[in-house]
Amino acid sequence: MQDLLSASGLITLTTDFGTHDPFVGVMKGVIFSRYADARIVDITHSIQPQNIAEASFWLMRSYRYFPDGTVHVAVIDPGVGTDRRIVAVRSASHILLAPDNGLLADIVSRDNTTQCIAVDAEVIDRIGLHLRSATFHGRDIFAPLAAELAAGRLHFADIGTPIFDFVASPLEQPSTSNDSVVGTVITIDRFGNLLTNIEGAVLAALAKPMVIVADVEYPVVRTYADAMPGAIVGVLNAFDVLEIAQVQGNGAVALNLERGATVTLRNRSG
Amino acid sequence: MQDLLSASGLITLTTDFGTHDPFVGVMKGVIFSRYADARIVDITHSIQPQNIAEASFWLMRSYRYFPDGTVHVAVIDPGVGTDRRIVAVRSASHILLAPDNGLLADIVSRDNTTQCIAVDAEVIDRIGLHLRSATFHGRDIFAPLAAELAAGRLHFADIGTPIFDFVASPLEQPSTSNDSVVGTVITIDRFGNLLTNIEGAVLAALAKPMVIVADVEYPVVRTYADAMPGAIVGVLNAFDVLEIAQVQGNGAVALNLERGATVTLRNRSG
Amino acid sequence: MQDLLSASGLITLTTDFGTHDPFVGVMKGVIFSRYADARIVDITHSIQPQNIAEASFWLMRSYRYFPDGTVHVAVIDPGVGTDRRIVAVRSASHILLAPDNGLLADIVSRDNTTQCIAVDAEVIDRIGLHLRSATFHGRDIFAPLAAELAAGRLHFADIGTPIFDFVASPLEQPSTSNDSVVGTVITIDRFGNLLTNIEGAVLAALAKPMVIVADVEYPVVRTYADAMPGAIVGVLNAFDVLEIAQVQGNGAVALNLERGATVTLRNRSG
Repeated sequence: MQDLLSASGLITLTTDFGTHDPFVGVMKGVIFSRYADARIVDITHSIQPQNIAEASFWLMRSYRYFPDGTVHVAVIDPGVGTDRRIVAVRSASHILLAPDNGLLADIVSRDNTTQCIAVDAEVIDRIGLHLRSATFHGRDIFAPLAAELAAGRLHFADIGTPIFDFVASPLEQPSTSNDSVVGTVITIDRFGNLLTNIEGAVLAALAKPMVIVADVEYPVVRTYADAMPGAIVGVLNAFDVLEIAQVQGNGAVALNLERGATVTLRNRSG
Repeated sequence: MQDLLSASGLITLTTDFGTHDPFVGVMKGVIFSRYADARIVDITHSIQPQNIAEASFWLMRSYRYFPDGTVHVAVIDPGVGTDRRIVAVRSASHILLAPDNGLLADIVSRDNTTQCIAVDAEVIDRIGLHLRSATFHGRDIFAPLAAELAAGRLHFADIGTPIFDFVASPLEQPSTSNDSVVGTVITIDRFGNLLTNIEGAVLAALAKPMVIVADVEYPVVRTYADAMPGAIVGVLNAFDVLEIAQVQGNGAVALNLERGATVTLRNRSG
Repeated sequence: MQDLLSASGLITLTTDFGTHDPFVGVMKGVIFSRYADARIVDITHSIQPQNIAEASFWLMRSYRYFPDGTVHVAVIDPGVGTDRRIVAVRSASHILLAPDNGLLADIVSRDNTTQCIAVDAEVIDRIGLHLRSATFHGRDIFAPLAAELAAGRLHFADIGTPIFDFVASPLEQPSTSNDSVVGTVITIDRFGNLLTNIEGAVLAALAKPMVIVADVEYPVVRTYADAMPGAIVGVLNAFDVLEIAQVQGNGAVALNLERGATVTLRNRSG
């Protein structure tokens, strides 16, 4: 191998394709057709259609739980069929592939050892992908490319050209003032927990943190069981972001909030 | 082996079981119990309950993306527990298994090298499946049969008797007149795209194609990005069928259409 | 190995995490990080949030379809972050892991050869899990523990201490009187079939069984196809429980019933 990264044979998939249709299954068929020993893990296929920020939020917080040498494919691709580039990022010992639409930009900005390339059109042609559709590059480009990388037949160092003009992340950052941090609900999980873009380090800086949602104050607790069933609480969740939850209930329903809602974090006065 | 087909060890599953209940998981348990090295890919489990036409549409357009030697199991089975036959089809280097309810009929009609058999009751007994339930042949017959085929312990040539009275496909065909083709929406994907039964060859025959849906004309474009966000367009999709889409939106919602809706394709006059 | 159980390398997952978020994918990443050759099967991730009874019902009826030596992980865990114990059960040649909240209690009560242990905190620390989150033990404890057991590096006999004060099952049992059995709808499947806690042995004891739902009598048939489309019937399903179904329809919608509804089984008089 020409670079130090040794492929684990593992490929993860993050898309907005859902699992209702055969799109993901067909991508796996293409992967196995090129690389019979692949192991494939679905991170999620339920990203809101074309919500690049949500995909970025989850992929950034998920990929390091996989073995070194994993190839992560993320296809949220409103620009499919245009001349938007396909980009590859190497972060720690992981390779990530996505359209150049900002999806990987947060991973790049958090890790200054990251290498970023645009995949050469010549490479895509060389592995036999010139007969591609205009609407399903997940199947026709990303799956074959991931298979070749995971099989160790293509190497990160050989597939593209370094770039420095990555499309910027669409993910909002919280704004900080003297006495508070104003964040945003990025996604809502299956339990109705509202996950924000406010991270653990911000929370840790406050001595007596509390959250304000729709003008009402709620406590910040260590875990759900630290409050009574039905209570609304802030919790630093297992992905190191502040979430607003209803204990043994559905916070999004109880508070009637959607993605994009504002969450303010501040110190309790007195 | 007695036939030329070499099993890939791969099994795909297409059902209307959903993933809400453990039905699919239990089928996989049965497969692994018989064949520890199986690899299993879900094509989809979200076929509308008992919608054989939808399953036929997707399986026909998906199976060739998998490696040669793959065993494809399709269980949409309103006749479970009756004496309906179980059929196996060999198409190219793939084996497909389904109840004899028309699900595989389109695959057979498109490929005149296809071999079709009804699985012998004696074979089902021989692999120990006489103690089967009356309601879950996916677990009790299809999964074990697929495992034995994928493991290479059973061979297509040995499991049944050629048949020529296949149950016909429930999938509608478009009707063609001098100046137009009238098709039907067969399924709606996660993005709200309306997928029709009009194929690429039909579209290619028109110099200036446009589509008519609910008495309104829309253009046919090469890819979604060729029209403005919000526009309704016809697109030849990556599975070679005409779909009606709203660019960066949900066509089914925007047009308020369901499966079964009529789509007319014709040449733009002038 | 110190016990007779030989690990199959297979791990099953049963959770209420859904597949909308990356929770399950990340658990799989953790498993593969520790045990590259693992095979992982999803039983279901769609247990109603925190519905321990539903998880118990399905896991009890699913786990024996998997190969001997399988490790089954069930995470429905409203007490996460508290000092609730983690328990392991060995039943036949299977290992099951869950929080001590009653989820495994029915499996234990049905098999008097079962061994039950509470996992030692020291074991959890030893495999490097002291840096765990307060809210996601599926990722931080259950996945690593399952990986070590499935890899054969940890053995059931070595990871805990026998316990006899298991938290009781939340799953209701049917009540039996002279002439009838009164059961409860535990779950509703994708087809709208209403699955009860009344088992095959109870049904087999009746010569001419019929069911009463919302004061209306319905017949008990062998399979769906034994009645006309649209008919409401009782059927002993493939998991050995009585279900109420509408033939080729959705029983739950047709009858307007939810989980918890009462179903009475009795002999037809005369």
